[in-house]
Amino acid sequence: MHEITMKMNADELILMALREDISSEDITTNSVMPNYCAGEVELRCKEDGVIAGLGVFARVFALLDPATVCEFTCKDGDTVRNGEVLGTIRGDIRVLLSGERTALNFLQRMSGIATYTRQIADLLAGSKTKLLDTRKTTPNMRIFEKYAVKVGGGNNHRYNLSDGVLLKDNHIGAAGGVAEAVRMAKAYAPFVRKIEIEVENLDMLREALDAGADIVMLDNMSVEDMREAVKLAKGRAETECSGNVTRENVARLVDIGVDYISSGALTHSAPILDLSLKNLHAI
Amino acid sequence: MHEITMKMNADELILMALREDISSEDITTNSVMPNYCAGEVELRCKEDGVIAGLGVFARVFALLDPATVCEFTCKDGDTVRNGEVLGTIRGDIRVLLSGERTALNFLQRMSGIATYTRQIADLLAGSKTKLLDTRKTTPNMRIFEKYAVKVGGGNNHRYNLSDGVLLKDNHIGAAGGVAEAVRMAKAYAPFVRKIEIEVENLDMLREALDAGADIVMLDNMSVEDMREAVKLAKGRAETECSGNVTRENVARLVDIGVDYISSGALTHSAPILDLSLKNLHAI
Amino acid sequence: MHEITMKMNADELILMALREDISSEDITTNSVMPNYCAGEVELRCKEDGVIAGLGVFARVFALLDPATVCEFTCKDGDTVRNGEVLGTIRGDIRVLLSGERTALNFLQRMSGIATYTRQIADLLAGSKTKLLDTRKTTPNMRIFEKYAVKVGGGNNHRYNLSDGVLLKDNHIGAAGGVAEAVRMAKAYAPFVRKIEIEVENLDMLREALDAGADIVMLDNMSVEDMREAVKLAKGRAETECSGNVTRENVARLVDIGVDYISSGALTHSAPILDLSLKNLHAI
Amino acid sequence: MHEITMKMNADELILMALREDISSEDITTNSVMPNYCAGEVELRCKEDGVIAGLGVFARVFALLDPATVCEFTCKDGDTVRNGEVLGTIRGDIRVLLSGERTALNFLQRMSGIATYTRQIADLLAGSKTKLLDTRKTTPNMRIFEKYAVKVGGGNNHRYNLSDGVLLKDNHIGAAGGVAEAVRMAKAYAPFVRKIEIEVENLDMLREALDAGADIVMLDNMSVEDMREAVKLAKGRAETECSGNVTRENVARLVDIGVDYISSGALTHSAPILDLSLKNLHAI
Amino acid sequence: MHEITMKMNADELILMALREDISSEDITTNSVMPNYCAGEVELRCKEDGVIAGLGVFARVFALLDPATVCEFTCKDGDTVRNGEVLGTIRGDIRVLLSGERTALNFLQRMSGIATYTRQIADLLAGSKTKLLDTRKTTPNMRIFEKYAVKVGGGNNHRYNLSDGVLLKDNHIGAAGGVAEAVRMAKAYAPFVRKIEIEVENLDMLREALDAGADIVMLDNMSVEDMREAVKLAKGRAETECSGNVTRENVARLVDIGVDYISSGALTHSAPILDLSLKNLHAI
Amino acid sequence: MHEITMKMNADELILMALREDISSEDITTNSVMPNYCAGEVELRCKEDGVIAGLGVFARVFALLDPATVCEFTCKDGDTVRNGEVLGTIRGDIRVLLSGERTALNFLQRMSGIATYTRQIADLLAGSKTKLLDTRKTTPNMRIFEKYAVKVGGGNNHRYNLSDGVLLKDNHIGAAGGVAEAVRMAKAYAPFVRKIEIEVENLDMLREALDAGADIVMLDNMSVEDMREAVKLAKGRAETECSGNVTRENVARLVDIGVDYISSGALTHSAPILDLSLKNLHAI
Repeated sequence: MHEITMKMNADELILMALREDISSEDITTNSVMPNYCAGEVELRCKEDGVIAGLGVFARVFALLDPATVCEFTCKDGDTVRNGEVLGTIRGDIRVLLSGERTALNFLQRMSGIATYTRQIADLLAGSKTKLLDTRKTTPNMRIFEKYAVKVGGGNNHRYNLSDGVLLKDNHIGAAGGVAEAVRMAKAYAPFVRKIEIEVENLDMLREALDAGADIVMLDNMSVEDMREAVKLAKGRAETECSGNVTRENVARLVDIGVDYISSGALTHSAPILDLSLKNLHAI
Repeated sequence: MHEITMKMNADELILMALREDISSEDITTNSVMPNYCAGEVELRCKEDGVIAGLGVFARVFALLDPATVCEFTCKDGDTVRNGEVLGTIRGDIRVLLSGERTALNFLQRMSGIATYTRQIADLLAGSKTKLLDTRKTTPNMRIFEKYAVKVGGGNNHRYNLSDGVLLKDNHIGAAGGVAEAVRMAKAYAPFVRKIEIEVENLDMLREALDAGADIVMLDNMSVEDMREAVKLAKGRAETECSGNVTRENVARLVDIGVDYISSGALTHSAPILDLSLKNLHAI
Repeated sequence: MHEITMKMNADELILMALREDISSEDITTNSVMPNYCAGEVELRCKEDGVIAGLGVFARVFALLDPATVCEFTCKDGDTVRNGEVLGTIRGDIRVLLSGERTALNFLQRMSGIATYTRQIADLLAGSKTKLLDTRKTTPNMRIFEKYAVKVGGGNNHRYNLSDGVLLKDNHIGAAGGVAEAVRMAKAYAPFVRKIEIEVENLDMLREALDAGADIVMLDNMSVEDMREAVKLAKGRAETECSGNVTRENVARLVDIGVDYISSGALTHSAPILDLSLKNLHAI
Repeated sequence: MHEITMKMNADELILMALREDISSEDITTNSVMPNYCAGEVELRCKEDGVIAGLGVFARVFALLDPATVCEFTCKDGDTVRNGEVLGTIRGDIRVLLSGERTALNFLQRMSGIATYTRQIADLLAGSKTKLLDTRKTTPNMRIFEKYAVKVGGGNNHRYNLSDGVLLKDNHIGAAGGVAEAVRMAKAYAPFVRKIEIEVENLDMLREALDAGADIVMLDNMSVEDMREAVKLAKGRAETECSGNVTRENVARLVDIGVDYISSGALTHSAPILDLSLKNLHAI
Repeated sequence: MHEITMKMNADELILMALREDISSEDITTNSVMPNYCAGEVELRCKEDGVIAGLGVFARVFALLDPATVCEFTCKDGDTVRNGEVLGTIRGDIRVLLSGERTALNFLQRMSGIATYTRQIADLLAGSKTKLLDTRKTTPNMRIFEKYAVKVGGGNNHRYNLSDGVLLKDNHIGAAGGVAEAVRMAKAYAPFVRKIEIEVENLDMLREALDAGADIVMLDNMSVEDMREAVKLAKGRAETECSGNVTRENVARLVDIGVDYISSGALTHSAPILDLSLKNLHAI
Repeated sequence: MHEITMKMNADELILMALREDISSEDITTNSVMPNYCAGEVELRCKEDGVIAGLGVFARVFALLDPATVCEFTCKDGDTVRNGEVLGTIRGDIRVLLSGERTALNFLQRMSGIATYTRQIADLLAGSKTKLLDTRKTTPNMRIFEKYAVKVGGGNNHRYNLSDGVLLKDNHIGAAGGVAEAVRMAKAYAPFVRKIEIEVENLDMLREALDAGADIVMLDNMSVEDMREAVKLAKGRAETECSGNVTRENVARLVDIGVDYISSGALTHSAPILDLSLKNLHAI
């Protein structure tokens, strides 16, 4: 994660997470360790996967104590193996103990998402189709989860409601039709936005293309219709296919030729990657 | 979720989640709907499970516009079925559209956790053993996730580092032994805290019991040792068994007789429960 | 301003502005008015212009006391005349006095921007060229200023660094060339972003068009080169002309045929529109 | 700006401004510059004026990355010339790019105010009359704008409603008369406050002087009446003249002999001073 | 407390105090009272004194639940007696229980300060000398404590370092002398500030008067010197006497004739006034 | 105070306190000291007592300027004497002046509490009874005040409503009886909480012991009943005695044999310990 992104947009969330876990003090550690004690601990991988969020993990400890040093033997996006030692954290043992859970809570979730994303992305390898995330992210975790998708080999869809236009059936209804909806969005939205519109059948698709939509989302179409849609849109708009895509069912979509497949499962149902801190000792 | 808890501790997180999704404005909706338009939409269940978080779901819309009205046909903890309509949300269509994703992101995760918790809790039914969560929650989601565990039939372990004492091997090492660690914790921690200590074998367990620990966590013990531990601790301390417990592997632990089994999977790896808003229309 | 935008994104800034002016209490008003007293006051226009920000103006008073009622005789975007009464504010006189300055500080600035924008937009009327704002807004006032530009008849460029891609010379240099910069941006940025690139001459323009840029910003080009650029880009990319555009010098750009002209002056140098509250009296 | 003032009162606003511009990340820079790259850029003046806000400008970059170094060839309050290089900023090029706009948005506005203030202050030079600002500042920019006024040679009026008493006609009406208003304010306000009162004619002035007002604001009086007022107030209270004062119309007020002239235009209508970052290059 | 002051400046502190006490939820109340239950409770006085902070007390409950109704039989500043019922609070019993401690913590401290202030103010009654508070307030309680002083019959000194000038020996030393310090403060500070200076002997006093100080603080002077100082300052500056003033030792200062006596004890050492909620019952 | 506790939970409150005192700038200091000037000042004790809060005191200055250095000749918990120099603070004189009041406001209150606590704790020395604080702390000062109690030799009761269960008469009423209340609390609260219940007579005590309460609070019982209660509870539950305990009246409770005596006076009525900064000089 870029240093500026971390400082401007992640730090506040990391601090909040630390305060969620330390609302007054770490009473266990403070009971038995009144004074500074130098130590180190290893970050161990307990499952095969893709690591993501090492910078966030390190930042948790740095926000508790800037003197804490993390040395990693891998970097975000690397494949990691069960049993592997991924790095060492060195500092005040009290900091290592008080920050452990929060640091792992971030790293395990981000790596879980990267791992799951990589699995689907690998299934699309060789095709022209790219994998997209959605806005189905965990509340207040979007900046971490969208980053993890990218680390895993996915692409990001719009970040939020403010930075992308996606006209759905209700928007179209309110506008009074596909053409009118696209026209209104172009007039209203900052001109750097692409206009995306959801279409349910080929007629609606033609209308959207004629209206100048930049992207068409093919919603609940049959595979045959999607193939036809891809042909119709070629050179006129990008195509996105959406709807309950998981690593179990993505295969059927690979050779349709859509530009993008989006999957909410990347961020809403990926299990964590199992990681732990082991072998804490004084130095 | 209690009304005061919601107002004091959840509202701020819900607002942050809304602002994460609406960093300047919902440009799509604002493009096509300049004015108020009354409407309603249904909350539909697309998968069997346990619902949790209806109050949070409703609160998302209320924070956007207090005039929004949610009427539910079920309550937190109820079993819900694929296809069931769980309620209706009525208000300004722009509010329904702008709040939809955030409201569902909360409700789906909380219901996913409740569903997964219920599945394990059902496996423990009939035994004297209760199911516990852990601190392996999603950063800044703890208040929602711990609540969902309770809705699903689990019990809560400590909320965070400040409200519970759990002495692990490093704390014991720093204190200079089990007895000393327990003594220091009792002297330091607010006197309303129970003192829990992690033990790895029966000798350590005996030491902990003699030192007056209130709870012993049996860590990585064989099933046989755990049975023995339960006997030794009987009437002297409560027992907790911990370590990678999932719905797939919990069965082996059911008849050991520990007081509690804790499972990080409840909050770190439960998939969401699939829910959606359907049939939005003006009224 | 949309109600949700106001609540999610403007309220906090309005409250901050109120607290900037009332850091402990309004000692003058509190000295002489210990108790509630109903009153009303008129909003008067003291200069011809375009009004913008009536909703924000009303919100200042509502945040002090929700019982305050504003009734306006005009709406955002209307032309207003020196001497005109634009509305009436009714409520506790203490609220009218304590909120007056903050409410006017917002309304005068927003109306000043709308007025200045309208003046330039009128000069472009009849041409195909649209007027754009920039990121040269007052710190922490962007949401109000971008809205005022739209009210005045301008269009919004990207909202900030996160929601639009604009590759400048240094970015191109870092990437190693125009084509590479466009390629990297397409790979990295959320796929709903248009890719804009700044070009300084016609060769660079051709390179950008070949690379698939969505928008080209013509920087410091002669009028002749810009005419040529518009021809080259036609059907391939949108064109934006930028650089110290004011109402005094925009005329020379009108018939070049670029799609957009952007002007920082809209938000950084528009004088306020003179407005005041008059005739406060008890009722 | 004093270091403590910056840290206690400006930093939070500067960070907010940065986050207004970087709501998730600088996608353009992050697309093409994944890694640290040392560079420097010049701060260039493009218009004659008075510089103000160099500390704030430097702080923008320091908050993004404390390793950034700004070296200026001038200091706040100096006259600067079109074409002059005012300093060099050295650091990670990504920091220079991501912070550029926010840093300039502060510096240009503050310097614009200092420049405009200096122009009026120069017209008052030689007289005993001093120039004051007002509360007609941009919302959430008061601390920067009041500082810029002082840099430009103006004096500050009260900071806000909490730290100065100014009794206007409505306050006088509520109190039941000039004498009563002054008495109530003296009784209520912290005793370190001077009591200022607005008077519209000489009778009211006499009443205010008799009541022990510390400052009288002469509102909408003719030049002749103001001359008379100055004589009456001499030795008894300070005098302030107010009302639509600009650099174009201030001359007529110079030799009246009031102690202070206040001008809202200093902060509500000064155009920016044109400045830019140029010649960015790796080092 | 004025409604606007409450909303703008007190609400946030009251909410923080509630969250200090309810960091996740009120587990006791929530254990046994899952549902709404209407009830009422009495506010009882258990000690004679002066009541202050009823509005803050009521606001604690209103912030938990706006439906809570407080009816008081007294108002701020009234003398109250041991055993007296001061009012009734009606609402959800859960709100009454969860808010009780925080509401009383505010009310007891504020009333304690008002009571202590009244005792000293009564000792000064009949003399021309007024009682002042200081900045020796409890961190983050100043707005409540300064208000309580006023309720008790005291006057407020400056609110903080930003809204009053008080030149002490170190400031005088840095400036290079009394006259220079006064001159620099007049040039720098907003012109509505009175200039106060601390003097240690009569020579320094004369210097301060000649320099045009508005207020002189007599520091550690003998009673005789203070009498002389009062004569010298008469008609030229106000006089303040300061230093460890308590209700036990204030008598000796009464007839010296200083304008003000300031006492830190008002806010740093007043014991609370004993109050409690009694007779809670369902209705 | 532990470094992590300070950073996570105290810093924000210290910063708020500084901003309460410096809402725009320290105008006195800034008037006369435009530039850095190295200096030092002594922390002097003006009254015998127990010092508490040296870390917080130092942190006030560090947050204004990390270059400030505090060297203390004592540590928290030490007995200090009138006239003693407790340490030296070295740094920019402007920082020493601007931070002085806030730093002392914390240190004096915390030391006052520690001193008062020590006085009562000494009276309990030799008995088996320990001294407890309550939730009767100053709003937003709990983390400092609870720490000071511990420094003074007291123990902490629950931190807040979220981390301890205390069933009072109304809770018991709502639950429908003592046994049911204990049962409901055990079922609802995190299992690491001890269950405390308030009892008013020996019958209720027996019921509570049978129900498995962990702690019984003896409320308004006669000394004889308390002696009996202690016998009954022995080996079954801990006993706490509560109610208006002060240093004047604690003696009568010493030999009853309860485990804990709680006293609200520790935090609500302890006077400050008089401390000051003296002998500031440039170095």
